[in-house]
Amino acid sequence: MARREFSAPKPWAEMAPALVDVAMGRKPADLVVRNGRWVNVHSGEIIAGTDLAIVGGRFAYCGPDASHTIGQGTKVVDAGGRYLVPGLCDAHMHVESGMVTVTEFARAVIPHGTTSMFIDPHEIANVLGLEGVRLMHDEAIAMPVNVHVQMPSCVPSAPGLENAGASLGPEDVAEAMSWPNIIGLGEVMNFPGVAANDPVMVGGIAETMKAGKTIGGHYASPDLGLPFHGYVAGGPEDDHEGTRVEDAVARVRQGMKAMLRLGSAWYDVATQIKAVTEQGLDPRNFILCTDDSHSGTLVHDGHMDRVVRHAIQQGLKPVTAIQMATINTAQHFRLERELGSIAPGRRADLLIVSDLAEMKIDEVYGRGVRLARGGRLEVDIPAYDYPATARNTVKLGKKLTAADFDIAAPAGANEVRVRVIGVIENQAPTRALEADLPVENGLVGMDRRNDVCQIALVERHRGTGGVTNGFVSGFGYMEDCALASTVAHDSHHMIVVGTNKDDMARAANRLGEVGGGVVLFSKGKELALVEMPIAGLMSDQRAEVVAEKAEKLVEAMRAMGCTLNNAYMQHSLLALVVIPELRISDVGIIDVTRFEKVPLFVEG
Amino acid sequence: MARREFSAPKPWAEMAPALVDVAMGRKPADLVVRNGRWVNVHSGEIIAGTDLAIVGGRFAYCGPDASHTIGQGTKVVDAGGRYLVPGLCDAHMHVESGMVTVTEFARAVIPHGTTSMFIDPHEIANVLGLEGVRLMHDEAIAMPVNVHVQMPSCVPSAPGLENAGASLGPEDVAEAMSWPNIIGLGEVMNFPGVAANDPVMVGGIAETMKAGKTIGGHYASPDLGLPFHGYVAGGPEDDHEGTRVEDAVARVRQGMKAMLRLGSAWYDVATQIKAVTEQGLDPRNFILCTDDSHSGTLVHDGHMDRVVRHAIQQGLKPVTAIQMATINTAQHFRLERELGSIAPGRRADLLIVSDLAEMKIDEVYGRGVRLARGGRLEVDIPAYDYPATARNTVKLGKKLTAADFDIAAPAGANEVRVRVIGVIENQAPTRALEADLPVENGLVGMDRRNDVCQIALVERHRGTGGVTNGFVSGFGYMEDCALASTVAHDSHHMIVVGTNKDDMARAANRLGEVGGGVVLFSKGKELALVEMPIAGLMSDQRAEVVAEKAEKLVEAMRAMGCTLNNAYMQHSLLALVVIPELRISDVGIIDVTRFEKVPLFVEG
Repeated sequence: MARREFSAPKPWAEMAPALVDVAMGRKPADLVVRNGRWVNVHSGEIIAGTDLAIVGGRFAYCGPDASHTIGQGTKVVDAGGRYLVPGLCDAHMHVESGMVTVTEFARAVIPHGTTSMFIDPHEIANVLGLEGVRLMHDEAIAMPVNVHVQMPSCVPSAPGLENAGASLGPEDVAEAMSWPNIIGLGEVMNFPGVAANDPVMVGGIAETMKAGKTIGGHYASPDLGLPFHGYVAGGPEDDHEGTRVEDAVARVRQGMKAMLRLGSAWYDVATQIKAVTEQGLDPRNFILCTDDSHSGTLVHDGHMDRVVRHAIQQGLKPVTAIQMATINTAQHFRLERELGSIAPGRRADLLIVSDLAEMKIDEVYGRGVRLARGGRLEVDIPAYDYPATARNTVKLGKKLTAADFDIAAPAGANEVRVRVIGVIENQAPTRALEADLPVENGLVGMDRRNDVCQIALVERHRGTGGVTNGFVSGFGYMEDCALASTVAHDSHHMIVVGTNKDDMARAANRLGEVGGGVVLFSKGKELALVEMPIAGLMSDQRAEVVAEKAEKLVEAMRAMGCTLNNAYMQHSLLALVVIPELRISDVGIIDVTRFEKVPLFVEG
Repeated sequence: MARREFSAPKPWAEMAPALVDVAMGRKPADLVVRNGRWVNVHSGEIIAGTDLAIVGGRFAYCGPDASHTIGQGTKVVDAGGRYLVPGLCDAHMHVESGMVTVTEFARAVIPHGTTSMFIDPHEIANVLGLEGVRLMHDEAIAMPVNVHVQMPSCVPSAPGLENAGASLGPEDVAEAMSWPNIIGLGEVMNFPGVAANDPVMVGGIAETMKAGKTIGGHYASPDLGLPFHGYVAGGPEDDHEGTRVEDAVARVRQGMKAMLRLGSAWYDVATQIKAVTEQGLDPRNFILCTDDSHSGTLVHDGHMDRVVRHAIQQGLKPVTAIQMATINTAQHFRLERELGSIAPGRRADLLIVSDLAEMKIDEVYGRGVRLARGGRLEVDIPAYDYPATARNTVKLGKKLTAADFDIAAPAGANEVRVRVIGVIENQAPTRALEADLPVENGLVGMDRRNDVCQIALVERHRGTGGVTNGFVSGFGYMEDCALASTVAHDSHHMIVVGTNKDDMARAANRLGEVGGGVVLFSKGKELALVEMPIAGLMSDQRAEVVAEKAEKLVEAMRAMGCTLNNAYMQHSLLALVVIPELRISDVGIIDVTRFEKVPLFVEG
């Protein structure tokens, strides 16, 4: 396996003379691919008998016969009539969701045909602020594929309702816009803030507009009335939060791009693509993305190949689906002249595909270099060396004990009525439930029979020792156990859910020792652990290794009675104080329908 | 008629809070248009019952009900179910072809629905160099519609084959890219130069790429082989020189935009649009433009409304044709977020149209201000004050006499065989003809019976007194007469065509007196004159006045026996040393199939 350093090709402006020389046959190409079916995302055609000539990582010639570009040093590949597809683009995604580094994410997805990613390091930004963004930015720039970074826009996600590890403002956005690998602003998820002209939102958007870059949107509400119109007028250019066909239609009508999402736990393509397949909307404003993919999905199911295949299965012409994962994306990010198509001057990101509808990818080229064949990576990508500051982020301030999870009842109560966060399987929103719980020795007890156990938000950014306690329902734990995770969207403190307070304390302390991750304890014993020492969010191991550990974790959770789909992901979302209805944060129990803190105990 | 100063709206980045406030109903709109059919170029739909709210020259709200945006000061317009169409864009055009100033051109085309023009001041650049470009740039910026300037790329068009009034190089391109109203590089017409890596072409393109702006193309050859591929690799992004359906297909496949042209004398839409209507290519990469419109066309036939109507008549859905004159153009010039659609944030350039297929435009709004109604301009646009340097450009260096047009025969010849430029009606290319002509008193005579008369290129930029003499056929002059014009593409010296050398001298001298234009003399008498004192290219009068004068000129030419369509335009193209086959320049007679000077007399 070849180990090498990677860098982007020289700009077209510099390379033009060499491209022209190759196209004219005056100088030999580095690589010629012969006799393919050109999936032309510009014209919408599939053109048999096409040759491609590549030099310096860019296409120089695309046409019927590249014989004249072949010289002594030219490598020639026979496509044998297979399809030549532009490398796929993931228009919006979070590397951290894979629980691996950018490098390991790229290693995992390149064999699946992804050659461009638009990543929003929102999670690390909540832990490490601008420094975290810069680290992933610098890691991204060294990849053999195009990994462009969106500057996180909402850190913290919900000021006042949580305290994240950092806070980013318009001045940080302005600074990031000057970095070489920043492509725009990450999903502006404080949508009420945009419609209310919140100065942090207005400022961040304005800085991005001034830089001429793309403003990512995130309008997570079914309300298509004034708040939606206000949001659009504020400037966001795309949205991947739509779930219904009317959401997609509304966004496109308003001049936004509808980003349709198929992630590990997001299934938003099939419903929304009907805007094209049934309602006949112009497909050019539809873009495919994953948003969040677990390592298990990457290892077992794929990445953008999976999304394109799925879109085709909804009835799109293959070339239309491919446009939504190539040229549409490139155009959206002002990169149409740089990537997203097989055409002269563009980066030679190329897939050789033997079955188009199935997206069976035989070979993957990034910038003219073969990176994968038959689903296997062929190059070694040097690991990025995260500094100690990024590896030492779980600061508990003390050793936790079971007593930290005690919930004192109001004086004199024998039974209490409490708010309970209700998990909904396969959905990000939660329900605001209530439950009557017993009181024993002044402490509120749990109710395992009715699936009500404890949840705690353990502060981990500043070592305050703070613990917010509450109740949750939906995991189905039937044994003494506790799951702790430092992946705890969006502020990424630590969420501990347990039926047993001793196990809760042990799980929390264990993550303090290993620098973060997810761990399951039962009766004092560690059943499964996925270490994520980088910011408490990412492993530095291979995606396969992480996936295997994560599978062990899921199995162990099942053994405890939890059969939820994507159980530990559901766990990680319970502090997400921007999505209704009820959440927990370091500030307290949060009613996200009203964006305010509420008491744990229900009065009256 | 309201007289006012115009300027572009504040940037969206600055205006966002106001737009949001209006969208949310917190502040009143300036203008609300109610109950229209929204021609939505994003979704491709036509949406009845749409209201639009506009503030500060931008759309703030586009949706089913803008009641909440109406306040005391809000002007309300009832569209009464008519269509709401984005203002039309002309993607590539030369104002000078209208023989009027930018101001007068805008006055003429605004009532026809054109609210964005991408102008290439290539002609004035050949006379006045960068100063000329800057003058038109500054005039353009003050218009009530969007007039963006492309920096001329090829001045002179054919170095070595002609000497223009100025010469522009990459350093001039770099300078122009920093001006506020430069949108990109004008048509790169030295296509052999691009494929040969000519440093001036490479340099100008590179400067434009570095500035992130659009590179206009001009590949005026039917050869779709290597020279075409070399040209594409060099960087041009569009081309309006295609005439056949295969030209359009080839350009789109290579990732260029096919610009389809319907000018006064260009009819390139009907054949090429078959790429969409018959071959099913994705329409997003097709763009409509005029390139060259005479004042008569503007006054009598229209502008982009005419082009869109024509495109619809070829079988495009109206919304698809409109996309080709709105959003496709905006996207091409990286202005998708600024203009080309009716959507929040964009400039409120809007047409109220009562018949879509006919493009019957009732009202025209530019940046939220009503500019025209019922085909009549409603605002006064202040004239731009061109300086004396721009008004004193016809420098003959001497008073010409008939003797300046004498053509001496080789010593001793009684008859000579000469090269003759053959005019082809309605086409820019010429034929390289030959003719046998008599010799009298050592001078070559003309042959009126066979329609061979004299042509002369009179140097007018540096007052050298230089005259190049030759022969032309095709005008059909049957009387003693001469037509002189300082519109003489591309170097814009003076072309004089005549059957009588006295008239030729008088016509040339007359243009020297009035600072340029077109004039027809017969037997010592001035039959018609269109003065164009600005750079010898543009009148400072109204388009209607110029059109009327031009019509008189055409009538007078007819009286002389010339029945060619667009006769004086054909005349003005005879020095165009970039289009085959035979031309005249200040350097001599030029064979444009071989790009070299040839003798007037044919040997052997």
